[in-house]
Amino acid sequence: MSSPAPLSRIRIVLCQPSHPGNIGAAARAMKTMGLTRLVLVNAHRFPDPEADARSSNATDVLHGAKLCTSLDEALADCQLAIALSARPRELSARIIAPREVAKLVVEQAQETAFVFGNETTGLSNDEVSRCQWLCSIPANPDYASLNLAAAVQVIAYELRLAAMQGDLLVAPAFPLATGEEIEHLYQHATQTLVALKFLNPLLPKRLLPRLRRLFARTQLEHEEVNILRGVLTSIDRVIERKSK
Amino acid sequence: MSSPAPLSRIRIVLCQPSHPGNIGAAARAMKTMGLTRLVLVNAHRFPDPEADARSSNATDVLHGAKLCTSLDEALADCQLAIALSARPRELSARIIAPREVAKLVVEQAQETAFVFGNETTGLSNDEVSRCQWLCSIPANPDYASLNLAAAVQVIAYELRLAAMQGDLLVAPAFPLATGEEIEHLYQHATQTLVALKFLNPLLPKRLLPRLRRLFARTQLEHEEVNILRGVLTSIDRVIERKSK
Repeated sequence: MSSPAPLSRIRIVLCQPSHPGNIGAAARAMKTMGLTRLVLVNAHRFPDPEADARSSNATDVLHGAKLCTSLDEALADCQLAIALSARPRELSARIIAPREVAKLVVEQAQETAFVFGNETTGLSNDEVSRCQWLCSIPANPDYASLNLAAAVQVIAYELRLAAMQGDLLVAPAFPLATGEEIEHLYQHATQTLVALKFLNPLLPKRLLPRLRRLFARTQLEHEEVNILRGVLTSIDRVIERKSK
Repeated sequence: MSSPAPLSRIRIVLCQPSHPGNIGAAARAMKTMGLTRLVLVNAHRFPDPEADARSSNATDVLHGAKLCTSLDEALADCQLAIALSARPRELSARIIAPREVAKLVVEQAQETAFVFGNETTGLSNDEVSRCQWLCSIPANPDYASLNLAAAVQVIAYELRLAAMQGDLLVAPAFPLATGEEIEHLYQHATQTLVALKFLNPLLPKRLLPRLRRLFARTQLEHEEVNILRGVLTSIDRVIERKSK
C-alpha cells in the first residue's frame, strides 16, 4: 500500500463501537487515505458480516485490527494520544483543529493514536484524560453529529494531506515518554500525594484531573518523567524516615 | 441552522445513487457542516426507510431533497458546477483539490453545485462535461474508493472551513499565571528540592533548566501554580517535622 512514512506511525482507536457497519466503514475510510492500523477497544460486535460488507475492499485493514480490552492497553506504547470530541471539556488539555493536529502529528514523528468514542456517548472523561490533546472537527454547532466513520474519514484525509506535504520531517530533539511511562508517573504521584496528605483519596476533588491536564499540555519527555519520578522517590524516602 | 452565508449557495448533487443508505448518510454529512441543499438525479430508491435511518437527525435535509430526472435539470440555475472524480479525465478542464476548490467557491459567491456520481460507476464523461471544474480528493492511489457519503463529508468539511475562514473552536480559557507567580514557584521548588536533597546547590547540573523548560511549554495557569505550591508546602511540612 502506498503510504507516506508518517502514516505508518498512526493508529486509529475506536472505543466501544456499537455498530459493526461503522467499524467496516472506518476501515475503508482509513485505507482510502493510506492508514492501516485499526485498534478496537471492546467492540460490541466484532467480527461481523456487516463490518466486512461496509469495509468494501478494505478487509485487510479490518481483519488486521488489534482487539484490546482497555484504552490503556490500546495506548500502552503510544507517545501521543489525541481524543476526538464534538464538545469542549472543561478540563480539556488543548483543543486543536484537525488541520493543525495533522501537521503537528506529521512533524513530531511519534507513535500516535487518534481515539474515537462510542457512536452515542462519545468518549468518557476518563478516556479523554488518557489523551494529551483534544481534537474537534469544526462542525455545524446546531448539528455536530458526524457519523463515526465520517469523522475517521476527515481525520485520515487531513493526515494524508499533511503527510504528503511534509517531506522535510524534523524529529523531536528528545524522545517523548510513552503512555505507559506517563500512567506509571501518575500512579506514583497519586501515592505520594496521598502519603503527603495533600490528596485525600476519599475526597479527591479535581486535583488529579487538573494535574493530568497540566502535564498533558507539555508532552512529557522520557527523561522528564525520570526526573519527576526521582523527585517523588525523594519525597517517599523522607516520609518513610519520618514514619519510622 | 447555523450556516455561514456562502454555504447557502452550494448544492450537493448525487447522480444515480444506488443505495438509499448512502443518500441518508450524505444528508447527515452535509448537515454536520451546515450544508442544506441536496439534489438527487434519478435515485434508484428514494424515499426509503434506510435513507431515513442513516440520515440520523438530518431528515430535514433528506426530506428537503430536490428530485430531478436529469443532471441538466439539477444544474439549470447554477453558475458553477464541479464534478467529483477519483480518476483524471482526458478531457477534463481543470483538476482542483478540495481545499483549493472550497476556497475558490467561497470567494466567487456563485450558485454552485458539487456533482457526485454513482457508487460503482462514478460520473459518466457526459456528466463530467456538464461541469466546469473537476475535483479529486487526494487518496491512496492503491485504494482511492471513498464511500459516497464519506466523499461528501470531506467536501462539505472543506467548504465549511473555507466559509468560516479559520473561525475555529477555542479552548476554554483559564487565566494564566503571571511571570512573577511563576518565578516564585521556581524559587519555592528550588528550596524544597534542596531540602529534599534531590538538588545539590553546589552541583545543580541541569535539573533546574530542565524543569523550567518543562513548565515553560505548558503555559502554567494561575490555579495550577497554586496547586504546585500547595504540593511543595506539604513536602516542606513533612521535612520540617522529620528534622524536629
